[in-house]
Amino acid sequence: MISFKNDYSTIAHPYVMDKLISYRDEINEVYGDDYHSDNAKKLIREKIKCDSDIYFISGGTITNMISISAFLKPYEAVIAVKSGHINVHETGAVEGQGHKIIEVDGYDGKIRREDIINVIKKHVDHHMVKPKLVFISNATEVGSVYTKAELKELKDICVKYDLYLYLDGARLAVSLSASDLSYEDYAKLTDAFYIGGTKIGAYFGEALVINNKSLAFEFNYSLKHYGGLLAKGFMAGIAFEALMENNLYYEIGKEQNEKAKYLSDKLKNIGISFNSNSKTNQIFPILNKKIVDELLKEFSFEIWDNISDDKIVVRFVTTFKTNYKDMDLLIEKIKSLR
Amino acid sequence: MISFKNDYSTIAHPYVMDKLISYRDEINEVYGDDYHSDNAKKLIREKIKCDSDIYFISGGTITNMISISAFLKPYEAVIAVKSGHINVHETGAVEGQGHKIIEVDGYDGKIRREDIINVIKKHVDHHMVKPKLVFISNATEVGSVYTKAELKELKDICVKYDLYLYLDGARLAVSLSASDLSYEDYAKLTDAFYIGGTKIGAYFGEALVINNKSLAFEFNYSLKHYGGLLAKGFMAGIAFEALMENNLYYEIGKEQNEKAKYLSDKLKNIGISFNSNSKTNQIFPILNKKIVDELLKEFSFEIWDNISDDKIVVRFVTTFKTNYKDMDLLIEKIKSLR
Amino acid sequence: MISFKNDYSTIAHPYVMDKLISYRDEINEVYGDDYHSDNAKKLIREKIKCDSDIYFISGGTITNMISISAFLKPYEAVIAVKSGHINVHETGAVEGQGHKIIEVDGYDGKIRREDIINVIKKHVDHHMVKPKLVFISNATEVGSVYTKAELKELKDICVKYDLYLYLDGARLAVSLSASDLSYEDYAKLTDAFYIGGTKIGAYFGEALVINNKSLAFEFNYSLKHYGGLLAKGFMAGIAFEALMENNLYYEIGKEQNEKAKYLSDKLKNIGISFNSNSKTNQIFPILNKKIVDELLKEFSFEIWDNISDDKIVVRFVTTFKTNYKDMDLLIEKIKSLR
Amino acid sequence: MISFKNDYSTIAHPYVMDKLISYRDEINEVYGDDYHSDNAKKLIREKIKCDSDIYFISGGTITNMISISAFLKPYEAVIAVKSGHINVHETGAVEGQGHKIIEVDGYDGKIRREDIINVIKKHVDHHMVKPKLVFISNATEVGSVYTKAELKELKDICVKYDLYLYLDGARLAVSLSASDLSYEDYAKLTDAFYIGGTKIGAYFGEALVINNKSLAFEFNYSLKHYGGLLAKGFMAGIAFEALMENNLYYEIGKEQNEKAKYLSDKLKNIGISFNSNSKTNQIFPILNKKIVDELLKEFSFEIWDNISDDKIVVRFVTTFKTNYKDMDLLIEKIKSLR
Repeated sequence: MISFKNDYSTIAHPYVMDKLISYRDEINEVYGDDYHSDNAKKLIREKIKCDSDIYFISGGTITNMISISAFLKPYEAVIAVKSGHINVHETGAVEGQGHKIIEVDGYDGKIRREDIINVIKKHVDHHMVKPKLVFISNATEVGSVYTKAELKELKDICVKYDLYLYLDGARLAVSLSASDLSYEDYAKLTDAFYIGGTKIGAYFGEALVINNKSLAFEFNYSLKHYGGLLAKGFMAGIAFEALMENNLYYEIGKEQNEKAKYLSDKLKNIGISFNSNSKTNQIFPILNKKIVDELLKEFSFEIWDNISDDKIVVRFVTTFKTNYKDMDLLIEKIKSLR
Repeated sequence: MISFKNDYSTIAHPYVMDKLISYRDEINEVYGDDYHSDNAKKLIREKIKCDSDIYFISGGTITNMISISAFLKPYEAVIAVKSGHINVHETGAVEGQGHKIIEVDGYDGKIRREDIINVIKKHVDHHMVKPKLVFISNATEVGSVYTKAELKELKDICVKYDLYLYLDGARLAVSLSASDLSYEDYAKLTDAFYIGGTKIGAYFGEALVINNKSLAFEFNYSLKHYGGLLAKGFMAGIAFEALMENNLYYEIGKEQNEKAKYLSDKLKNIGISFNSNSKTNQIFPILNKKIVDELLKEFSFEIWDNISDDKIVVRFVTTFKTNYKDMDLLIEKIKSLR
Repeated sequence: MISFKNDYSTIAHPYVMDKLISYRDEINEVYGDDYHSDNAKKLIREKIKCDSDIYFISGGTITNMISISAFLKPYEAVIAVKSGHINVHETGAVEGQGHKIIEVDGYDGKIRREDIINVIKKHVDHHMVKPKLVFISNATEVGSVYTKAELKELKDICVKYDLYLYLDGARLAVSLSASDLSYEDYAKLTDAFYIGGTKIGAYFGEALVINNKSLAFEFNYSLKHYGGLLAKGFMAGIAFEALMENNLYYEIGKEQNEKAKYLSDKLKNIGISFNSNSKTNQIFPILNKKIVDELLKEFSFEIWDNISDDKIVVRFVTTFKTNYKDMDLLIEKIKSLR
Repeated sequence: MISFKNDYSTIAHPYVMDKLISYRDEINEVYGDDYHSDNAKKLIREKIKCDSDIYFISGGTITNMISISAFLKPYEAVIAVKSGHINVHETGAVEGQGHKIIEVDGYDGKIRREDIINVIKKHVDHHMVKPKLVFISNATEVGSVYTKAELKELKDICVKYDLYLYLDGARLAVSLSASDLSYEDYAKLTDAFYIGGTKIGAYFGEALVINNKSLAFEFNYSLKHYGGLLAKGFMAGIAFEALMENNLYYEIGKEQNEKAKYLSDKLKNIGISFNSNSKTNQIFPILNKKIVDELLKEFSFEIWDNISDDKIVVRFVTTFKTNYKDMDLLIEKIKSLR
């Protein structure tokens, strides 16, 4: 079975793994008060060119849950696009800590300026929640990316209406080459964002970067209160040291995008259409049911959505382990089934 | 200033008030363990012809908040129409206690069978919340009413998918004459509903009726835990004794509907169009900005929505205190301004 | 059956009731934006000689729950005495909104300076909650009262350690004559307190007084978010207008204390001992089981605690309705049973 | 600097690490639906001789937080000993999800039968939380252990009063040789417990074992809802495969206890007294301040409590990495300072 299923089914990227092994005999300080965490934070701060507060957390859902809960008052709400990860795929973790998510339609998985303005206009008094944080992802759930101009526009509208801009970077790596946004831009244009490790070659770990200092106040208390303080924080530190060295994080993303582009170009060539305008390592071709059934005998991948009885959106994900040979096999198979 | 602003701006209906006064020297048991509460429950059970568990709570938002929180597990979610009271006008009280509200478009303020089916189809595993309770109101936020056939259809789909059906009856009284639904039907077709007092002549109080016995288990603990246990529960008991006697509750609703119909018929006659198909005591005419500005000098009412710079949806509410003379003045004024 | 059971079993004090009746035909603004609420706030501000923010809420538990939740961040905790109302008799409402209560032993129902210092010393880092609010009641759960010197001492220690001082005044009225604390002192020495209405002659309602302006920021959102915004807020306004006029609130408390003193003096004269040093309208004599059983045939009162199989602490409460004749009957009965 | 600071400062036990490395090229299913997780569960079930539901979670605090929140209704409370981890060292994570912790004094870090009975007797109605879950740890926070007879007694009292018995096994391994309790006993005598990995040689991970099937219903939803579902669940699976093979988990615990016994025996020989009756790998000698200050120049360890200005309780922890040579150095140093 050849897998295009997701980008977190291997323990770690080889370089990250080698790093971990090299420290197997070390004794470290715990709860993140260790050398590796400090060094990883230093490396990240060099990339983002900003003296932000940085915290390592085990996974994406709990990072979003803790950050949003720590940043907002109970009656304050999040604005997110309908397809946003927190709105669909986190089993109500944000609402679970008390915050409403106001969903907006957006376009191509992205929130637009006018979506925010509409929400603000409708929330006029204390009988309604107070919209306070705009949640976006880059890359988005559907593989599209915000450009620098788009992110700047969102930032401006957030400043205007006194909203926080929070960016979920579970797959930030793939945005770095697919968009014109740099590490530095993320630090300048968001109040907080996270550099996702789990889906980019770390055995676990996300680096939450809080640029708005007022949001970092006593954040360690929130981290522990919501169950997110890692006992062996030094392991996350080691992973991010590895990812930040030699531009590895960027390179993993770039390689994944290139493979996805190879695959989607070939599929387009044979007339396959797509569900979103993905520029990153998740692509969403629309296939007939018969083709999907046949493919599943040799390849593993996600069924994303059923457009109709016969038209199915599937998701192919490319990773640092994806082979061109396997992609060719996939393409040939689809060709043969049409 | 003549008021069409809302139906809870007077202390109480004269009959309810007289009742209260008649008991001014009594000493009662507290926290709802009193004669009046027991008697009011008996009167309600006679109306609904069902041995349901009944609890008196101070207001609508806290009734919804406590009921939904007590009925659901943390990861279970509510399905509600976009315009639903809990989704818009309760400052995130339901999410505040941890539950996601999945909003659906509905039609004319009402949820349809297919809205529920669509939600069920999309929520397939534990990475998403589990839809478990359908929230509806009768009358709805926009004055429309569910018919018996419609409620039956929702009940059937809830049974099929193992969902609770919960009905917010803040203005249940007006539905009793505007729809073909009887008290008895509400008890048969919902898992729980509340008979609203605050907006129908009580000084305060809603009667939560839990028909599904499994949902009533240890409900008193939930009531106190969420701050909803009334110290002077006997006062709510007295109010509902008064409302249930002589069919008063039904009569108040009927009278309010008749007044609203008088007003809306006259407005239709002069060519005014409406934003919803209201059959109850809240009507939503669409007026030009100039007319609205003039009216506000002599009448008080709510601005509901701005359709465009010039087209404004307003809300007129009729109550047991509304005079036909005042309605005629309003109509004449609008006529003169067109 | 003669009742010494509690002080909230009658609808309202006659003067409050008459006030309410006098406004039975009025149409008011709703949700607390009305004349009566404004006027009651004005009258309270005159008493406390401070421009505090004031909110009317339906009952004590929900007032404590909303205030504490609004004032604290999720990881911040409350310090309360073991017997404190929020720690025992509110079904975990404060923890229900996410906050730990750190209980301290105290003395005679009161927190001492050293209790607070001990807590602060033990809570040293982010692996523990952050103590942030000291909760006290005056009168306390056991009828004792803080003196001005004691409250001043607590305030000083709170200032020193950057803690909020919150005072539950469910029975504030009885403290006003039993202690040397004035309305003004409460405003000066606490960050927030509430003037309890429900147990002092109001049909419902507590007046939350927020003296620390930073805690009042957007408090209306919290009020609605936690289900505590009263639709007919004007009714609470009317009650507090009545209670504040002619010093009625103080006088009710004073009268209740005098009756309790009459009763406890007589009981002490016949050799009855007490469980606490109550100076207010709740007294806690220790009686033999045989006496208690006999008394319960003619009098109603609470069993407070079982010290041993034979020694029982009971609670007698005096109110504006308590008669001296009935107290004499109670005393004679106890005498006859010894 | 020689460390006696804690038992989670190394990445993993060498055998666990080797296992992980051996799978570095594998592609696995995610979110715990993988071969390694299944196999680790099988191995655990063989040890406990029970068909319990098992879930792997990243750390101890979040395991306690999710389990307790999933098992209890909002108004239900936990009984825990004063020094219990959830009561002191988890920054209010349990209260953060809404549940009161009722603290009892206990003895030597352990809850006694009568502690539970006292709590039950005092919680009589819905004005108080409903005690529903007894939380214990084995080994306890102070290194002591429950015997089989003691655990059986607690189980019986829990059955009698319809309480859940939950056991935090962050250091279960050390209890297996220090007490007469076997894996099997834990499955029989608790409703749920967890086999701690993080502090016993895993890079991360706790195995939550739910023996009471009713508590496991839809637990996966809770896991995701509270942010605890591991993306790379297979890593926890690999760790527990390693720990369960060749009795490794037991052996690590046994070795750690032997080292601790060596150290405490020597310290007792030179007249040092201890703060608790520890039989496991955490020992708590009481030392003079001067000695502590000197020791800290060469050894790292935790200051546990200040009994007086001069008497300090410290904690020495032994691990699979602790050397006898280092222990001898510590003992000699203390000897020389007395």
